[in-house]
Amino acid sequence: MLRKNRLFTPGPTPLLPAAQTAMASFGLHHRTAEFRALLTRTLADLKEFIGTNHDVILLASSGTGAMEASVTNLTSPGDKVLVLTAGKFGERWRDLAIAYRSTLEVVTAPYGETFSLKEVGQKLTPDIRCVYVQATESSTGARHDIEGIAKLVRTRGEDSLLVVDAITGLGTTHLDIDLWGVDVIIGGSQKALMVPPGLAYLAISERAWQRMEATRSPRYYFDLRKERKAAAKGESAFTPATSLIAALGAALDFVRHTGHGDLVAGRVALIDNAEVCAEMTRAASQALGMKLFAPACPAAALTAISVPSGLDAGAIVKQFRDTFSAVVANGQGEMKGKLFRIAHIGYYDFLDTLGVIGALEHVLAAVTRRPVEYGAGLRAAQEVYRKKMSDAQVVGA
Amino acid sequence: MLRKNRLFTPGPTPLLPAAQTAMASFGLHHRTAEFRALLTRTLADLKEFIGTNHDVILLASSGTGAMEASVTNLTSPGDKVLVLTAGKFGERWRDLAIAYRSTLEVVTAPYGETFSLKEVGQKLTPDIRCVYVQATESSTGARHDIEGIAKLVRTRGEDSLLVVDAITGLGTTHLDIDLWGVDVIIGGSQKALMVPPGLAYLAISERAWQRMEATRSPRYYFDLRKERKAAAKGESAFTPATSLIAALGAALDFVRHTGHGDLVAGRVALIDNAEVCAEMTRAASQALGMKLFAPACPAAALTAISVPSGLDAGAIVKQFRDTFSAVVANGQGEMKGKLFRIAHIGYYDFLDTLGVIGALEHVLAAVTRRPVEYGAGLRAAQEVYRKKMSDAQVVGA
Repeated sequence: MLRKNRLFTPGPTPLLPAAQTAMASFGLHHRTAEFRALLTRTLADLKEFIGTNHDVILLASSGTGAMEASVTNLTSPGDKVLVLTAGKFGERWRDLAIAYRSTLEVVTAPYGETFSLKEVGQKLTPDIRCVYVQATESSTGARHDIEGIAKLVRTRGEDSLLVVDAITGLGTTHLDIDLWGVDVIIGGSQKALMVPPGLAYLAISERAWQRMEATRSPRYYFDLRKERKAAAKGESAFTPATSLIAALGAALDFVRHTGHGDLVAGRVALIDNAEVCAEMTRAASQALGMKLFAPACPAAALTAISVPSGLDAGAIVKQFRDTFSAVVANGQGEMKGKLFRIAHIGYYDFLDTLGVIGALEHVLAAVTRRPVEYGAGLRAAQEVYRKKMSDAQVVGA
Repeated sequence: MLRKNRLFTPGPTPLLPAAQTAMASFGLHHRTAEFRALLTRTLADLKEFIGTNHDVILLASSGTGAMEASVTNLTSPGDKVLVLTAGKFGERWRDLAIAYRSTLEVVTAPYGETFSLKEVGQKLTPDIRCVYVQATESSTGARHDIEGIAKLVRTRGEDSLLVVDAITGLGTTHLDIDLWGVDVIIGGSQKALMVPPGLAYLAISERAWQRMEATRSPRYYFDLRKERKAAAKGESAFTPATSLIAALGAALDFVRHTGHGDLVAGRVALIDNAEVCAEMTRAASQALGMKLFAPACPAAALTAISVPSGLDAGAIVKQFRDTFSAVVANGQGEMKGKLFRIAHIGYYDFLDTLGVIGALEHVLAAVTRRPVEYGAGLRAAQEVYRKKMSDAQVVGA
């Protein structure tokens, strides 16, 4: 049969057609009034999308670049920082802090779980300069309690800055960053905003901007102060990734349209969409006898599913790719082979979700060589969708 | 939830991304060596795709333009012709023959059925100049027996030319036109070839080319002899639809790739794909208690499903569009309101098909206001797919 190339990975995610068109047709030079107008508008839209009054910076880099920028701009060597880690991306915060010679405090939760707020509170001494955490841990499908963590940081941390990697979180989980007091939030283009990889963005609080003046970690390309100064004039400090910015502008237009003219409403719609897709997928997986990897704190961004014992997740990933051209993700780090991940970030709809669940039934039958009750996963997903839609009608009525 | 715009109509069909890219980036003038090379290659590829040694002509028109060209080039006013009609598109042949003052013989089958070959044979007197028929009748989802009809024409019709509208048939049903003795076969870009509407094509036998020299129906834009002369030099008689031809070239490349380097194998793969999608859809519809409209001779191109009594198909079409942004087709002609149609022509895969079936379950629940056994249609489709794939493995082994 024909097999369309389909991404079900937690980034890159499926591209928005309007963003593809905008990207393909963009060819302006970046030092022009037209581009300045585009960048200014896109930064303003991003700000509205994130739901913040803080200045937003756009970088030509992957999300990791923006994570590094947070570390280098906000700490000096020897500064004490607190890393909250429960997966591969938590470990990336740790590795970055080590690379820039921070003094490390760490709260660890097992892969698939989230942090004990009590333990976070205990480690949050007033001398902690930065707290690093993920909104959703893409390697495990767990969602962390950013509101709860922010409350602790604001009450106990005094001058601590809270830096949240929301690369897979923005547009898949609710974040009210100004209200909660999040100092830096980081996003990436290839996630809920439906654009190819290559852009990262940060919303940065005044407290964090002030911190940068006194820090002494080496930085050049990622010197956020330079970018802030340039952005005020609709410029970037270095050559911007122009076509990706055109794509991002088109994606934000789509989100605004989805929100009936309001970008925040559009973001809420994206989150609700991911929640439905995720709940359908969780119900289907369980109906097929699979175990969720993060049952206590599942993110809407993605669903991590444990593989039955004796199986390698790689075989499931391979079977999806070979028979359906559908790309799901293997586990990462210590979970490689032990789980696989189906993403719901951004541009997915009901048909995509039902399709991948139907494919999963065939994949399981092929890989486990055990009989699968065809339709069992699909039926569970249908019931979730039916209930969600009838609940939505009741709310709307 | 997000809802992607999705076509499940028997034309236009979902666009091939590589064709969209080729179309968007094409800007050459048509009187250039580059364009002549593109047209020459595309015509050669079309010939291979159709599986014919006959010359192929490409027109900037819809499929109906090519139907009209067949009538005006192959008949003179007063010529006796035989129209085989079992639906809206059969009636189009009748209307065209009347418009150009042919003397009409007609074999009619009820909507949803196909012709009695006996009756066709009886009407096929040696003075019939042309026999007009559809390979698949898009208004009813019926498949006609072109091989059987061609055999009759070749044995009884003497100088009769057999003209087959295969606009939805090419790439969804097996047609061996040179072997069977089909004189003219007509296709359109917006069907199995996954390109937007705007191009029609015809493969024309030597017998038919010779006929054109003696016919006296008025024609100018659709004078096929002019196009043949131009095509021999990589030209078209009038301004060609250049970007669509670029798209068609890319689509044929895709079909060749699908056929591992062979366009005929690629066409067979397209047909097999449509057959699986159609069988999944038929099984699902029946499992949901719906009646097929053309159960005795179902086409793989599309599935026509009768609506339960007391319901208007328009309500089903509207519900698909309103709740899933999925466009299925209402009945046409006398069947408007009585059936709806889900297409399988061209660029569909397993996930699309399962998705539309899942959507159908919700649509039926909403429109009939009767309980639907969620998953019943999906389970039936899954069983079809499982069986088809295991049969294919046995054949492959």
